[in-house]
Amino acid sequence: MTAPDPLPWRTHSTQIAYRNRWVTVVVDEVALPTGARYEYTRLEPVGVGVAVVGFNTHGQIALLREYRHGVGEVIWQLPGGFAAHDEELAAAALRELAEETGFAPANPGAESVRYLGLVWDNPALGRMSSHLFAVWNLVSTADTKWDPAEFLTLHWMAPAWLKEAVRSGEIKERTTVAAVAYLLLNGLI
Amino acid sequence: MTAPDPLPWRTHSTQIAYRNRWVTVVVDEVALPTGARYEYTRLEPVGVGVAVVGFNTHGQIALLREYRHGVGEVIWQLPGGFAAHDEELAAAALRELAEETGFAPANPGAESVRYLGLVWDNPALGRMSSHLFAVWNLVSTADTKWDPAEFLTLHWMAPAWLKEAVRSGEIKERTTVAAVAYLLLNGLI
Repeated sequence: MTAPDPLPWRTHSTQIAYRNRWVTVVVDEVALPTGARYEYTRLEPVGVGVAVVGFNTHGQIALLREYRHGVGEVIWQLPGGFAAHDEELAAAALRELAEETGFAPANPGAESVRYLGLVWDNPALGRMSSHLFAVWNLVSTADTKWDPAEFLTLHWMAPAWLKEAVRSGEIKERTTVAAVAYLLLNGLI
Repeated sequence: MTAPDPLPWRTHSTQIAYRNRWVTVVVDEVALPTGARYEYTRLEPVGVGVAVVGFNTHGQIALLREYRHGVGEVIWQLPGGFAAHDEELAAAALRELAEETGFAPANPGAESVRYLGLVWDNPALGRMSSHLFAVWNLVSTADTKWDPAEFLTLHWMAPAWLKEAVRSGEIKERTTVAAVAYLLLNGLI
């Protein structure tokens, strides 16, 4: 890089402005590189996100239809959720996959799970992010376990369908779009 | 699709739980498809996001280094920001590009701007999203206009560098990762 990096800001005080089970709003008083004071509002993450691209033995990908009240629409998305405290991230991805779809790797083990990368929801708002994984050779365990407010339908779609759905704008959800980028860049679809 | 879509929820009441200039937290009382009542916390978007992949006449892409206090790091990202009220989205993308980088299309006009798609930050949390554009043949106007808390450095990077930076995890910001997906799927990089 030719130009030196901008300086980080210094945080003088941090105050929780609002908190409930799902959202924590924090207001920091910071010093900008100029020395000026500035109030910055951000969210504390409520957990570490994981999402997973799961391929069955026919090479199709597990996609879910779910009503997401944040956008007020039924949308396409990958299986995923939050890792439990101290839960290993790949294990969390496989657990969420199993709970939401009833599918698991035919031959469990590290070799069937590949880490794709992390995507930040919005670096201006906070550290909320999702770790993305891919897993192959999924077979049915016929055993789903949904949260009280989860109502899902599972669809097995070809990689070509997924790529066209992202390209055309039918899929707009950030982990699914990011997963397509990581899969393409690694030659996996 | 073989399975019918999950049902949308019904909203019975909406209450603003917290609001400042940057964040609005809303708590909805909703009815789930089972009929059960449920409290759902979401954010109202503070604006419509735009971001832009800008190519110079050598085919290099404008990327910014900026300290983002939400993640507490200096990161790579695309030029972008919020569209002004009633501002056309492509015009907003070009305005943010010009303000943050000092570059603009050599031959302005609709033909030099291409819409890539929308990416939702997190459909569970709200409708916060960014419209992504690509623009070519950028030339210097030598005139930047930064917001009070903006400190940026501009770097022109080859498409191959951008792809490897996303693949390797050096870039994790959702609009940049999503833009790479859209550019690859449209054969633009």
